[in-house]
This record gives sequence, structure tokens and C-alpha cells, in this order.
Amino acid sequence: MTHISTWIDEYHKGSRFGLNGEILIKQNSKYQEIIVIENEYYGRALMLDGCWMTSLKDEKYYHECLVHPALSSIDEKSNVLIIGGGDGGTARECVKYPQISKIDLVEIDEEVIKISKKFLKEIGGEAWSDKRLKIHIDDGVQWVKKTRDNFYDVIFIDCSDPSELSNLLFSDSFYRECKRILTKNGILATQSESPESFKNIHISILKTLKKFFRVSETMYSFVPIYPSGIWSWTFASEEVLHLSKRNCNEALRIEKSCEIWNLNFQNAAFKMMPNKIVKELNS
Amino acid sequence: MTHISTWIDEYHKGSRFGLNGEILIKQNSKYQEIIVIENEYYGRALMLDGCWMTSLKDEKYYHECLVHPALSSIDEKSNVLIIGGGDGGTARECVKYPQISKIDLVEIDEEVIKISKKFLKEIGGEAWSDKRLKIHIDDGVQWVKKTRDNFYDVIFIDCSDPSELSNLLFSDSFYRECKRILTKNGILATQSESPESFKNIHISILKTLKKFFRVSETMYSFVPIYPSGIWSWTFASEEVLHLSKRNCNEALRIEKSCEIWNLNFQNAAFKMMPNKIVKELNS
Repeated sequence: MTHISTWIDEYHKGSRFGLNGEILIKQNSKYQEIIVIENEYYGRALMLDGCWMTSLKDEKYYHECLVHPALSSIDEKSNVLIIGGGDGGTARECVKYPQISKIDLVEIDEEVIKISKKFLKEIGGEAWSDKRLKIHIDDGVQWVKKTRDNFYDVIFIDCSDPSELSNLLFSDSFYRECKRILTKNGILATQSESPESFKNIHISILKTLKKFFRVSETMYSFVPIYPSGIWSWTFASEEVLHLSKRNCNEALRIEKSCEIWNLNFQNAAFKMMPNKIVKELNS
Repeated sequence: MTHISTWIDEYHKGSRFGLNGEILIKQNSKYQEIIVIENEYYGRALMLDGCWMTSLKDEKYYHECLVHPALSSIDEKSNVLIIGGGDGGTARECVKYPQISKIDLVEIDEEVIKISKKFLKEIGGEAWSDKRLKIHIDDGVQWVKKTRDNFYDVIFIDCSDPSELSNLLFSDSFYRECKRILTKNGILATQSESPESFKNIHISILKTLKKFFRVSETMYSFVPIYPSGIWSWTFASEEVLHLSKRNCNEALRIEKSCEIWNLNFQNAAFKMMPNKIVKELNS
């Protein structure tokens, strides 16, 4: 059997980030082109429609930052919704919390889940066999529309950059519906793009969430394989966000299991807004 | 006149980061290959021996983080040394401080300065005509060796990744000499590589500086065009580092002139050590 190494690049405004390696699978699903490559440094990496989504080596930068701030003060018997997240990484971080009683993972593209389970199974890890995880192959926008009021304690929006497929996940009407289906002190946690390589979208998400929710806070950290490497996550709620008022023993337990996240890191990341974004939001 | 666009990539452990554009200059100096390319998003970008050094669009991520923490509590009539920094960006941030009376910029490769002044003149900006700036074409290691004790208040090490050309700038003997030529409460400020893409070197720099200096603190932030996008800067001294005890009016004045840095950002960046580095340093 021969292993042929090739370069696969994501192109972005005149720059490209490429990984070299053997292509393990390349197929077109109903929605998008899916590629998994085996790279020397990043391990197996997933690309959807020309954009790097995740890799075994760097996925924790993304998933730990999306999940742990939102679950800092989670109550017993919480109900969680993940929109997107077909690689399983967000679910894997969620199942660390025994307070969660149910996780609905709503992924539009069944092939992403199948391929992730087959080629990137470490990313979903224990989540795939956790009885609390229910997988629904469905459109996240429709799922939210048909959910009753005050149903979820936390909603994670774990989606790709705005595109024909995901545009509605960044719309006013979608955020309004999310607010409707959240419990009174529920939290919406969303990746909010890069303040550098998707600056306009980033600012638009921040402004929109501030408009719809009483409280909204943004953290900045790193995702090596995303354009510019700078990424952000925003947490919004109708109540004060107790993002670091977690039970101290629980924080220590979660820290032990994390590669990137710890409570100090999180508290700092909420203050890492680049000065040019501060200026633009204040102007 | 035809403008030919081409891809120039930096290769790193099976990944590559490339910029597309017209090559404005490509030449071999006595020490290295120097390329300047004109890119749609990053503007003009400088590559030395296959590694991206800086670009008009993203250079402030690097230079503002190297300079402002070190100059937070700088005294009147301070003497500053920059080793490397031939693009002028570190000097440009330094000249914002009237307390500095002299800046020695010691760059080994005269061609880097010539090309930066010609093609990247915004990076050096006002520094190039500032009377306090003295340019010396010399080897930084030798310069430090021949400097008398207690001479500089701040030393900036603004060098490329360890290589045949720069290896000695990461050595024990060099740090020892830096300590010797610093004033009693002087500060050594160095870029300290990426905790992700140069993890072993990064950890080695942190451990070495902790060994030679009573106090040493590391900040983490972003440099989009460097491998992984995560970068670090370390500040070491024999005295307590008053990194944020700057005069408040001065802080506001500097913030106004900065794209990335502000005091909140800086204070947070010193706590952004990824958990895996925390664990490795504590093990």
C-alpha cells in the first residue's frame, strides 16, 4: 500500500494555511466537501468546504474555551443543546459535568458525525457512548424554532464560518429564538469568529448579542489552525454571568483534564480584547 | 510593467503558512535570504531565511507586546539596547517614551535595515529620524560582551527563531552577560517563542531566565503570521517587575497610539499560559 503525501490548504484573503499528509478520506456529502488528512504535527485534521475545522493536536484550544466558561455555574439536571459540533469535541467537554442530565447534539450533516466517529474518534471520546448524549440529524435553525420556551439551560453554537450553509446561525432571528428557548438564567455560548481575520463579522456578532441579551461577554484565545490563529467565544445571558463562580473543587477537577483551559487562563482571556476592537466598539 | 503574483510559504513541521503577492525584493545578504512581498491582506511582509518576520498589517501584535510592558515604569534618562529589530518596529514603540535618552540598535545584517527603510518604512516610522536612535551594525553577542557593567536600563532581544545565526542569543552565557550589563533594576525583555510550535525552546527560555534572574514573567498573545499564531514574550529582572505601575496618564497616551496593546490586555496576557505549559513547568 502506498501513502501519498499532499498539501491541502485553506485560502483566506491572499494567505493560505496548509497541512501536508496522506488524505484519509475526501468525499462530498449532501452539504459540503469533507476531507480528513493525517499530518505529522497536527495529527488527523478535518476540513469542510475548504476550511480547517479541527485537528487532534489543536482541537482543545477551541472546545475547552467554548464549553467551560458556560458550564462554570451550571445547576443540577441541566439541559444542554449543541448546534453543529459534529466532531464531538464540545460534547466530550460537556460530559465531564455530572450536573448535565441531557445533551441534544443537532448536526445538519450526518456524514460529519460518521467520519468523525471513524477517523477522529478521540475528539468525541467518551461522549459518543454517554447515555445523556442524543444525536439529531437536523437543521439547527429549525430545531430551535420548534423547541418550546425556557427549555435549555445552555446552548452551544459550534458552527463553521458564515456561509450559505451557516448564515442563518448568525442572524437576528436565530439569536431571538435562542433567547426564547433558554431558561431564565440560561447561557448562549457561541464561537464568535476572529477579531483579525473576520473582524466585521466578529464585531457584528458582539453588537447583535449585546442588543438581544442583557449581558454578553467575549473571550479571546488561540486556535492555531484557524485563519490568523486568534479566535473568540461569546457568552450571553439575561442574568449576570457567573463565569468563574464555579465550585472550587470542580474547577480543579476540570483543570486536571484540560490542556489549555484553567480558571486563571479563562479569567484573563475575557480581558484579551485587542485595542483596535475596543476602539471600534467604543466609537 | 507586469506584476507577477506568486506564493511564498514558511514551512514548519508539516504545515505551511503562505502569502500571495508580488515579490518586491529577493536577495541574499551576507547572512540570509531576504524577501519582501506585497500581500492583499497583510500588506508588505518580510521573510528571512524562509521565516516570516513581520508585516505591515500584523507587526503591532509583536512590537507593542515586546516593548510596552518593559517600559511601564521606566525612569528618566534611560538607556535602551535593542538586539536585532532591524525592521525598526521595536525602536518605533520605544521613541514614544521621552524618558529614554538613548537607544542602541544592534543589528547584525545591514541589509535588513536598508530593505526595511526602503520597503517597510512605516514599521520604523518616526524612529528612523529620532536623534536618540543609534544604529550599530554588529553582532549582538559581541556587543553585549564589550559593554561595561550596569550600563542599560532595558535590553530588548528582538531576534529570529534559534538558528545558526541566532542560537547564541538563547544561550546561558548570553543571558549572564545581559544581566551583567543591566542596571540594578534593569529589565531584559525577549521574545520567547511559541508555547505551541516551539514548545521545547519556549520552556527552555523560561527555565533559563528563571535560573539567572530573581524575577521572570511571561506574557502570551497573538502574532498571526508566526507558526501557530500563539507567541510569548518574557521579562526578567533582579528587582520586582512593576509591569503595570506606569503613570496613568502615560498609559492612556500610549494606549491611544496602540492597535493591540492596552493596560488591561497586558495584565491579562501575563495570565494566558496554556494549561499544558503550566503542568509541564510544575512537573
